[in-house]
Amino acid sequence: MRTVYVNGVFCPENQGVVSIFDRGFLFADGVYEVTSVLDGKLIDFSGHMARLRRSMSELSIPAPASEDELLSIHRQLVDKNALAEGLIYMQVSRGAADRDFLFPAGDIRPSLVLFTQTGQLRDRPAAKTGLKVVTLPDLRWARRDIKTVQLLYPSMAKTEAKRRGADDAWLVEDGFVTEGSSNNAYIVNADGALITRPLSHAILPGITRSAILRLATETGLTVEERPFSIEEALAAREAFITSASSFVMPVVEIDGHKIGDGAPGEIAGRLRAIYIDEAVKTAV
Amino acid sequence: MRTVYVNGVFCPENQGVVSIFDRGFLFADGVYEVTSVLDGKLIDFSGHMARLRRSMSELSIPAPASEDELLSIHRQLVDKNALAEGLIYMQVSRGAADRDFLFPAGDIRPSLVLFTQTGQLRDRPAAKTGLKVVTLPDLRWARRDIKTVQLLYPSMAKTEAKRRGADDAWLVEDGFVTEGSSNNAYIVNADGALITRPLSHAILPGITRSAILRLATETGLTVEERPFSIEEALAAREAFITSASSFVMPVVEIDGHKIGDGAPGEIAGRLRAIYIDEAVKTAV
Repeated sequence: MRTVYVNGVFCPENQGVVSIFDRGFLFADGVYEVTSVLDGKLIDFSGHMARLRRSMSELSIPAPASEDELLSIHRQLVDKNALAEGLIYMQVSRGAADRDFLFPAGDIRPSLVLFTQTGQLRDRPAAKTGLKVVTLPDLRWARRDIKTVQLLYPSMAKTEAKRRGADDAWLVEDGFVTEGSSNNAYIVNADGALITRPLSHAILPGITRSAILRLATETGLTVEERPFSIEEALAAREAFITSASSFVMPVVEIDGHKIGDGAPGEIAGRLRAIYIDEAVKTAV
Repeated sequence: MRTVYVNGVFCPENQGVVSIFDRGFLFADGVYEVTSVLDGKLIDFSGHMARLRRSMSELSIPAPASEDELLSIHRQLVDKNALAEGLIYMQVSRGAADRDFLFPAGDIRPSLVLFTQTGQLRDRPAAKTGLKVVTLPDLRWARRDIKTVQLLYPSMAKTEAKRRGADDAWLVEDGFVTEGSSNNAYIVNADGALITRPLSHAILPGITRSAILRLATETGLTVEERPFSIEEALAAREAFITSASSFVMPVVEIDGHKIGDGAPGEIAGRLRAIYIDEAVKTAV
C-alpha cells in the first residue's frame, strides 16, 4: 500500500481523505502538478514549481508550504514508496469552507495532497510503436494556461478516443489544433520545421514543451510557434506530443490517416532521447 | 454542528470526508443539485431528480442510489438538522480510483455526498432592493447544460463581481448574455415581453427557470426564448434572475446602469410571489 501525503501527514493511501467541504471537491477550485521520477530523482522540478506558483497566483490561492518544504515532501514520498520510476502528483486546493461561490474571505488553509504512481516512463512500448489520435472539438474553458483540476472534458475526450480505438485525442478549436487531452501537440512539416502552437490562454504552458523547444533549437531545428490545422497535420512528415509523464511520444495516426510513412518519426525519437538524457542529468 | 451524509453514513460535518482519489476531487468528475427547503419540505424535488438523472446519463455515471433512497436521505437530513428553511446540497461523483484520465473500467462505486445549509430564502432583503450585476466574458466550458462541479469560473466571476461592488455577474458570449454565475437571466422589454435565452449547451436548464416560464405564460405574459444582448438588457424595463436557491430576484443595475426606474420590477415581484406560493403547495 502506498504512503500518501495529506495536509501535513503521511498516511496509508486508504486513509488519505479531504473534507467534503474542500473547494477542490465542490468547485474544482484547485491546481496541480505532476512530476516525473527517474532513478529516484525528480525531473524538471523547478519548472513545475514555477508553474504551480503561477497557477496559484492567477487564482489567488496562497502557497500551502514553501518550495523547500514541497521538495522535501516529494523526496520523502520517493523514499517511503521506494519509487525508482514513476510520477508524483501534487494538488493544491483553496481549502475547506462552507459552500459559497465567493472565494472565502479571511484565512483559510489551502489543502495540499500528494501521492505517487509507479510506472515505466523510459521504456514505454508506445515510444516505439507510436500513438493513434482522433480529433475532437475543444470544449474546455478559456483559461487552459492555468493548470486546474477542471479536467472533466480532457477525461471525456481521452475516454472517447479509447472507445474509438485510439490512444488519445487532439483537441481542435476554430480549425486549429490546441493540444492533446493532457499534452502539447507538434508536427514536423515537409521542410523539417517543428511547428507547435504558441503559448496563450488556449493551451497549457508545458514544462516539457519548454525544454523540447530549447533542445530542438540547440540541435539546429527550425521551430515555428504558430497554430496548425488538422489538414496540415495530416500532411506532416511527423507528429508527436510532449508531457511531463510521457516526455516525447510519436503520433503515427490521426483520425485513421497515417502520418508520414506511419512509423514513429526520426525527430521525435531523437528529441525523446536527448530530453531523457538531459532530464536525468539535471534531476534533483 | 451539522449532520452530513457521505456514502451511506450520517456523520458530524467535521467527519465528512472523501478519498483523495475521488474523481470529484482530482478531475471535477461529478455532478450536483441544490434543493431548497421551505417549512421543512423540499421544493421542486422531482425536477432536481430529473436533471440529476440527465447529468449522470450525459457523463455515464451510474446512479449511487434509487430516487426513493435519495428522497429519504434528503428527508433524514432535514430531520437531523431541524432544517426549516435553507438548502440541501447533493453531489454525485464517479467515485475513487487510481488517477487516470480514462474513466475507470469495471465497477467503481459513485460517491454520494449531501449536506444542509440554513438560510432565509423567502425573506431576503435583496428581493426588495434588487441585485447589482456586472458583465464578464463567459469563459466556461461548452457543456454548461450538464450541472458539473467545474465551478471555478463562476466562482471567479462572482468574486470579481463582489470586488467591483456588485452582487453577481452576468456572463456574455458573442455579445449575448448566457446566464448569471449560478442562475438564469431574464429581461422584460418595453412591450412587457419576458425574454430569456433558450435551452442549449450554453446554459443550465434551470428547474426554477422551467417553472417560471410556465407560470409567466399562465399569467398571460408573452415569453420569448431567444438570446438578448447587453444593449437590450440596459434598455429593458426590468431584469431578474432565477435559481433554485434565490427563486426570483430582481436585477436593478447592470454595469452601473440603472434598469428601468432602478427599483425592483413589478413582474419580477409578481413571479416571485406566485412561484413561492406554488412551490410551498407542491413541496414534498
